[in-house]
Order: sequence, then C-alpha cells, then structure tokens
Amino acid sequence: MMKNEKLGNLRHSAAHLLAAAVMKLWPDTKRTIGPVIDEGFYYDFEFSKPLSETDLPKIEKAMKQIVQSWKEFERHEVSAEEAKKEYKKNPYKIELINEFSSEGQTLTIYQSGDFRDLCRGGHCENPSKELKHFKLMSVAGAYWRGSEKNQMLTRIYGTAFETKEELDAYLAMRERAKKCDHRRLGKEFDLFTFSPLVGPGLPLWTPRGTLVRQLIDEYVWELRREKGYARVTIPHITKQALYEQSGHWQKYADELYKIQTREGHLLVMKPMNCPHHIQIFSRKKHSYREMPQRYAETTMVYRDEQSGELNGLSRVISITQDDAHVFCRYTQVKQEALNIWDIVKRFYSAFNIPLKIRLSLHDPAQFDKYLGEKKVWEAAEKQLRQLIAEQGATALEATGEAAFYGPKIDFMGVDSLGREWQVATIQLDMNQPERFDLTCINEDGKDERIVMLHAAIAGSLERFLAIIMEHLACAFPLWLSPVQVRIAAVGKDHHAFCAELAAKLQTEGIRADVDDNNETIGNKIRKASNEKIPYTLVIGDKEMGSDKLAVRIRGDQKVVAINTEQFIAKLKKSIAERESTLDLA
Amino acid sequence: MMKNEKLGNLRHSAAHLLAAAVMKLWPDTKRTIGPVIDEGFYYDFEFSKPLSETDLPKIEKAMKQIVQSWKEFERHEVSAEEAKKEYKKNPYKIELINEFSSEGQTLTIYQSGDFRDLCRGGHCENPSKELKHFKLMSVAGAYWRGSEKNQMLTRIYGTAFETKEELDAYLAMRERAKKCDHRRLGKEFDLFTFSPLVGPGLPLWTPRGTLVRQLIDEYVWELRREKGYARVTIPHITKQALYEQSGHWQKYADELYKIQTREGHLLVMKPMNCPHHIQIFSRKKHSYREMPQRYAETTMVYRDEQSGELNGLSRVISITQDDAHVFCRYTQVKQEALNIWDIVKRFYSAFNIPLKIRLSLHDPAQFDKYLGEKKVWEAAEKQLRQLIAEQGATALEATGEAAFYGPKIDFMGVDSLGREWQVATIQLDMNQPERFDLTCINEDGKDERIVMLHAAIAGSLERFLAIIMEHLACAFPLWLSPVQVRIAAVGKDHHAFCAELAAKLQTEGIRADVDDNNETIGNKIRKASNEKIPYTLVIGDKEMGSDKLAVRIRGDQKVVAINTEQFIAKLKKSIAERESTLDLA
Repeated sequence: MMKNEKLGNLRHSAAHLLAAAVMKLWPDTKRTIGPVIDEGFYYDFEFSKPLSETDLPKIEKAMKQIVQSWKEFERHEVSAEEAKKEYKKNPYKIELINEFSSEGQTLTIYQSGDFRDLCRGGHCENPSKELKHFKLMSVAGAYWRGSEKNQMLTRIYGTAFETKEELDAYLAMRERAKKCDHRRLGKEFDLFTFSPLVGPGLPLWTPRGTLVRQLIDEYVWELRREKGYARVTIPHITKQALYEQSGHWQKYADELYKIQTREGHLLVMKPMNCPHHIQIFSRKKHSYREMPQRYAETTMVYRDEQSGELNGLSRVISITQDDAHVFCRYTQVKQEALNIWDIVKRFYSAFNIPLKIRLSLHDPAQFDKYLGEKKVWEAAEKQLRQLIAEQGATALEATGEAAFYGPKIDFMGVDSLGREWQVATIQLDMNQPERFDLTCINEDGKDERIVMLHAAIAGSLERFLAIIMEHLACAFPLWLSPVQVRIAAVGKDHHAFCAELAAKLQTEGIRADVDDNNETIGNKIRKASNEKIPYTLVIGDKEMGSDKLAVRIRGDQKVVAINTEQFIAKLKKSIAERESTLDLA
Repeated sequence: MMKNEKLGNLRHSAAHLLAAAVMKLWPDTKRTIGPVIDEGFYYDFEFSKPLSETDLPKIEKAMKQIVQSWKEFERHEVSAEEAKKEYKKNPYKIELINEFSSEGQTLTIYQSGDFRDLCRGGHCENPSKELKHFKLMSVAGAYWRGSEKNQMLTRIYGTAFETKEELDAYLAMRERAKKCDHRRLGKEFDLFTFSPLVGPGLPLWTPRGTLVRQLIDEYVWELRREKGYARVTIPHITKQALYEQSGHWQKYADELYKIQTREGHLLVMKPMNCPHHIQIFSRKKHSYREMPQRYAETTMVYRDEQSGELNGLSRVISITQDDAHVFCRYTQVKQEALNIWDIVKRFYSAFNIPLKIRLSLHDPAQFDKYLGEKKVWEAAEKQLRQLIAEQGATALEATGEAAFYGPKIDFMGVDSLGREWQVATIQLDMNQPERFDLTCINEDGKDERIVMLHAAIAGSLERFLAIIMEHLACAFPLWLSPVQVRIAAVGKDHHAFCAELAAKLQTEGIRADVDDNNETIGNKIRKASNEKIPYTLVIGDKEMGSDKLAVRIRGDQKVVAINTEQFIAKLKKSIAERESTLDLA
C-alpha cells in the first residue's frame, strides 16, 4: 500500500532520475512512462540493445551522480507543437502528446538539472537532499500500454524511501519473501507444476499438492457440515441466459470465456457459482420448515485474465473456490452469518493466521455500478454493521469495495512477513433473490422473498495455498503435512523394523514413510529437516533395543523420548484438532 | 442389440409398411428414409400438418389392412431419370437419387402391393404371413440427415418381432423400464435437475444426488488407495498444443469446445484427462524405484454433443469421469492391470451388477484410424489376451472397438432388465508414451520407455448413476442410501425420544432422520417405503417401553426386533463392507 502523497512524490521523482540516468548512459533509448506503484515505481523504455539486471548497479551509480545537481523540478507549460518538436524522435511521447492535447489538457514539462520530461507533476521539493534512499530492483518485459498488440518494452522496477532504515527494512523483507516465494517452494516441495503445452495460469497439482488441497478442503467441509451445510454439484458451463438474468453478463461479459457450439449456440464458462446454485434451489418450492438451505461446493471457476497479470498461484485462470450459498429468511441472516464467522475463525487459527475485518460498502457516488435499490442496500449494510458490533469486533469500513449485488464482511489475513491478504468473505445479497424471484412458503402458506448469503472460507484454494506456503515457508502444521513422520533407518539391519513401525503408524491414519536409502544417518536427518517433516524417528540398534522412540521435532534441536502408543495418541489428537503447533509435551 | 439378419429384414419390411400406411392416410406427406435400429425401426416424414402419438393406433390399423395384400417385395432396377420422375414432388428422395447415382450405385425400387419405395433391399419373404407382430412406439422430431441446418422432420418409431411372445416380452420390458426411467426417478427421489437457463445436457446435482455421487466416488477412491494410487488435480482447459502432441486434435477437433481468449489465443475444454496427467508425470525425472506412478482424479470432461443426442444422464455434455492413469514399466503392466480388475470386481459387486468381459481390438482393415505401429499394437493385444486367460475369464473379442491409442478390456454390466452397458475399462497404451517421450531411469541409469494404463471404474458418474438408478429402481444398498434409517414418531409424546435416537445413530455415522409430521403412522410408513429407505423404526409408547427396536426392512413385510446396540453394529458393518443386500440376521 502507498503510505502517503509525500512518499509518492519522492518515488515519482526517482522515476525521473532513473530515466535521466538511462538516457545519459544510452542516449538513443526511447523512454515512455514512469508511474508510481504500491512498492515503488517503474519506468518503461525501448532500448536499442537488450538490457539485463547486471546493468542495474551502473544505472544506480549514474543516478547518484546526476541527483547531486537536481535542486528542484521546474514546471514549464508547453504547446503541443513545442512538445512534439522536443520529442520528435520518440513515437511513444508523440502518441501521449496527441492524446493529452486532443483531450484539451495543458501539457507540462518538468526540468531538473538538464533533464526534461513530459509529466503532470507531483515531485519532491529538493531531490538532491531528499532522494537518497533508492534501489533498482528488477527488469521485466511489458507491452506498451499493456496491450500485447503493441511493442514489447523493457521495464525497470525500483523503490525509494524517505530514510535509510525504511529502505533497509523493505529490502530485508523482500529478501525473506524471496526465500518463501511460493513459486520456488512449489517446485522444491513438489506441490504443483505448470506445463507450456497446457498454458500459463493453469496449474497442475501433483500428488503432494493435491493432498494438501484436499486436506484444506476437507477441513472446510467438516466445519460446514457441523453447521448443516450440504454439498451440491454443478457443471463448469452454462447458457448465456443464466448470466443475463443474474446481471453478470451485462457487467462482466468481457471477462467470460465464451464457447461457440457446433450447433451455433453460445455457452460460457462460469466465473462464479451463485447463479447455478440458485437454479438448484429453484428446482422446487421450499417450505419455511426446510429453510435455510445451505449449499456448499468446491469447484473451479474460470476468468479470462490477461497473461501479463498471471503470477504463480496468486493469480490463475482456473480458480478453485470453496464456495457456499445460504438461502434463508430475513430473520435467519444473523445466525447464518455468525455460523460462517465461527467457521472462518476456527479455520484460520489452524494456520496461525490472525485476521482483520473489513466492512465493504457500496460507493454512493457510483450507485449505477450496483444491482438493486438504495434502501435494500442500506438495510443490508446496517445488518452487517450491527453484526460486527455485536461480535465486539472492530472493522475498517471500505466504501466502494462491495460486490455488485451486496455488501460484505471481508476477512484480511496477516502473514508472517506482515503482508495483508483478503481471504474469507461473507456477502449479504438481497438482489439476486429479486432477479431470480426466490421465495419460500411461509407459515401463512404465502410466498415470502428470501435472502442469500455468499461465503468462501479459504477463498481461492490456489491463492490461499500461495499465502500459507509463504506464511509458513512450507513448514505446514502436522495435520497438513504430506509426510507427517519420517522413519530414518541407520542401516540395512533396521529396515524391517522401520517398515513395521511405518505400517503401524499408517494403520492409525498417520502419513509415515521410511528412508531406507544407502546414505549416512546425518544426511537422512538433514533431508527430513529440509523437507520440513514434523517428526523424524531415527532407528538404529539402540532404538530397536529401547521401549521408547527418539523423536526429532521440526525446528527443535533436542530429541524427545516417548513411548510408541503415547506418540501415536498425541499425533492423532493433534491431527483431529488441527493443532497449528508441534507439541509432544 | 439386433439379433440377426432375418429380424432386421422383418423390421425393414415393417418400415415400408409404416410408410405405405402414412401415405394412404395423408397422401401429401413427403417420406424420406426408414432404417432398422437396435430395438426396431423408424421412418422420417415431412407431414403437411402436425402428427401426435394419438394418431399411432390409426396408422397401425391401416398397416394391418395393407399388409394383407403384400405377398412379396418385387425388385425393380430403375434409371436416375425414371426414379426422379417417380419422386418429382419429393425433394428428399431426389437428393438421395442424385447422391446414389453420382456414386455409380444401381438404383432399385421395391414394390409390395401397390406401394413402391426407393430401397437397397433386405426384406422378408412374404409380409402378409410374416409381418404380424409389430407396434408403433412413439413420435419424435428429427432433422433431415441429422443436421440442425436442415428441415425438422417427424420420426415415427416402431418395432416388430417374429412371434407374439417376443413382442409381448419386449413391450413388458419397456413398461418396466419406463417405471424405472432414471429421468422420472431423478425427480421423484430429488437427485438431480436441469435448468433451461443453464441448458440441456448439463445436470445440476441436488444435495441428495451429490451425496450419492460422493459415496460412489469415495468407494472407488478407497479401493484405489489400497493399491497405491494418489490423487492429482488439473484444470478443465488447455492450450490446443497439448492435443496436437497427443493426437487428439487431429482426430477429435470437431468434438472439442473451443475458447477464443481476449488476447486471441485458442484454448480448448478437455474431452479426456490423459494428456494433462502426462504433463504431471513429466514434471520431473522418475527413478525406477518410484515406478509405477498411479494418478487418479474424478473430474468433469466436456464434449460438444449434438442436442438431439442428449438424454437424461445417459448422454450429457458435462461428464464426470473417475479416471486414473498408471505410468509403469512394461514388466509391471500385468500386476497393475490385475489390480484394476480386482477393483472393478469389488466395486460392481456392491451394486449386484454382474459383469461380462470384452476384449476390444483394433480393426486391421482400417489401421490408419489408430496411433502407432502394428507390432506395438499386436504386442499390447497379446498382453491383454494373456491376462484374460490367466484370470480364467472368457471374453468376447470385438474388432474395431479399441481406443485410438491402444486395445482395452471393457467390462459390460448386465442390469436387472437384462440390458448390457459398457461400464469400466482397462486400456493399455504404448502410443502416448512414445508421443510424449515418457521414460523412467532404469537400474543402469538409462532412460527406459514406459507404458500407460488408462482405467475408469464407474466410468462416467452420470451414466453410471442412470444405470444403477434404473437397475435398482432407486432402492440403493444401505451404504449408498441418502437416508439410511427413518424414525417415525407415532405421536407428539414420542418426538423427544425419536430425536435422541436419531442423534445417537448420527454420532455413529449413520444417516438417520425423524418423521415428526402431523400424520398417521400408516402414512409415515408408506412414505418411508416409497422413499425406499432401508430401515424404518416406528416409535410409540410400546417401543419406548421396550429395550428392543422394531425394525421394518425395505421390501419385507415382517418386523424384526433387535436391540439398539446390535442394530447399530450391524449397520456399521454393512456400510463399511458396502453390502449389497439388507440383512439383520
């Protein structure tokens, strides 16, 4: 998140400085634009020869020299003619100049030292004094104006802070984050893979990764089942008519994958599940005695994302949602929302992820973006606000963050690197029930309009897995670890005993394996540690002669002696209760 | 299945007779073609006014009159000119005449009585004597030549047999089948539904239907897990490149759903899972010690079916396959195939479905339809034949029924109406491993070509459910019943006791519910019987005072007295062992 305007101005000034250095080093480069982003800034260039990250120190050095002569940013208003003359060799700037002047904007050029750039302004006061703590981060390809139809440019990313301490802290966090990058961990821990034949944004889940997905999904289902949810199943496609009635077509047609059938019909892939689930609810009349109806389904949805925006598991095309819809009477909303809240709390505690709460409201200034009537919205928002207050929770209220059909309570997870992620959500929807005329038969035998709650717990399984992989650096809690116990044999004489012990653990539902490779025991212990296996048992002559197991606990130096039955009992309890820490005490 | 040529000739003669009757009743009708099908015959007409099923008795009556004068079918060779003159008012016949004559075929017209029809021949000897046991069955719409671009015609279906007994037996079977029609049962037992907004061929699964699907799938998974399978997860789409390499694109491009992305790429929905699973196998090198790799996944595949061919759950667009692929060394094929065979046997016994075996081979006359080399095919077919022999099984050998990448062992289920359905399959594939260059590293450190087995147990879950719904008339075995025990309260005073008993059963993992509606106990028992609930407990004063439960067993008149703990133990055992019959003895 950008902290304030001052920091933004500083970073924008740094982008100018980056461009100045590049133009000094390679004068025939064509520069384009250099905006501020969440974590810093970038500038896009067309170089006449390829640039690599090894060139960044040279550019940084030039920036440090140049900035000494930059005492201010001088503002010059120019005519389109003047501007075009100044940039006559740069078609990108010419394109921008034509565009801005056709919109009637005043064109300005800012000068610092002897460097001039077309710019709308927003800089620091005195660059030579303020612009000291910056760093160039990386180089990437980017299409001019984000369209793959345009020229591929070279983007240089950098960041800048007001103090050295802030820059150092940011760089240290980046370094930690790099080690925990889920794309790297995904390969190292063999959880998922991508194939160039299948395409970007379409992860393929290995046996280990699928196991972790299933364990997470089973936990969500266990929590939901206790609250009376039932699972349903829908296909991944539909006729367009479904989304015309729901309103999604009018709003999101561009982002939907469309299929032309042999017979000339238009089908679309589902980008969400609510309209399909509504069709299941609508299959028959429901008595008030059958309400609420709570439908849950973990299923993939598809959205036509631009390939430049795809990123590991954080942004994919095939998104697995642990979705649920509760169809209930207005009087049942509170209890149902509390049930979901309870599920969310229990679920996230199993991963040691603290939660913040955000109440996402409609934007009154852009009410045409939403379905339904103002008074329905206000009633719905009031309900959620009340609910939060009754829970004794404090929520950040975020105008304009509502879904297009209703307000929501969003849960923001805070990870071990201090980053915030939107994870679970409870959405109150009084509009889809209107559009699909959803009712139940009430005590008087009359049709009564009902309300819908949309709820996801993990949210997108892909995104959730990216978050917990980075949050935990793949040191999953016991219940989630693909291998829970590693039995390392000291030598060949111990293989049979190890296999017997593994079978015993497996019979008790514990995922145990045996390392009977021809390696030193030191190596085997190191391997188990690298694989982040919760418990490692070393089995040699001594252990075979003892009635106790010698257990090495992940992340702990000491060896705990415990008898086998006790060990099994502890593990089973920890797994059943989804404990987030390893503890044999 | 068509029994023999004689029956075919009889039915083809009946199609002539049907056309003669229609032309006599409505002379301005345009007739088209009238072929023989598995269960009888049909004839397609363009009527000048709509026809309904209530017209069928009138047509049958006319057929019975006309046939008396039909002593034989006289063959007349005609020129295209003559034929076109005869059918000058019938554009369908003209189209056929032009087509046949352009192919150089001899045109023949067959005459019986005063009715003449363009026909290639194949009739009974003496219709007036042989053609007595026929019945018109139904009326449907059908496009001329099966293309939705052509005129919609009216199709009349009929059947004919050599004896009255055979016809009566067939009609009785049809009557039974109608009562067990899964489309009717699906609604009655609230298992699935269709929505006009979602579209035909795209079933939506209710909570009860999803539960049944999940129970079936969990059973398959339990059997597979014992054999060392692991689950994987893939998206429903891919770049076309995957199928170009697998060979599916060249063979099935027409039947694939294609998606044009915003950025102009072509994606396709997967019609099968093997190429995706191959990508998971290929993510890294496998040592011979890691072989076989056994991947299982229950996932939906999509095929662009023509809407006229969609039929309840028997033929859908969104097909859920319980698919698995075993990547193994050539020496491991036998054991892996036997493992699958064992799973198939155990699975089908839980539904009381006997199996026949078919060995599906390539067609040597059309070898260009298949991938790969002849000697590879012959080796693969020899392997499977040997396997069947070693199992002491007898198989029907079916030339031309192989998959395009390899031969297969198909399992044919025989249902309670005597119908045969292809269900499970084991496919041996030596061709995809070549195309994708799949290897493992062998004992000598060298790359060794591997083999793939494709295996489905239930096959398509939709089709399998259609089969067992009809086979069992929804009287599912205990382990598969959505409600396993119904507790019927005699009066209000018994509600609390019933609720307590239900909770006790539920804690033991038994799906029990309570009927506490304000109805007579007789009604409640009838309802439970109609819902095909395995066990019904009536709870009144007498039962509350006894230490035994009075259990009514589905389909049985007598009431069994059994103590609660014993009852629970019996049920748990029956569920765990997936017993196919209800038994409290």
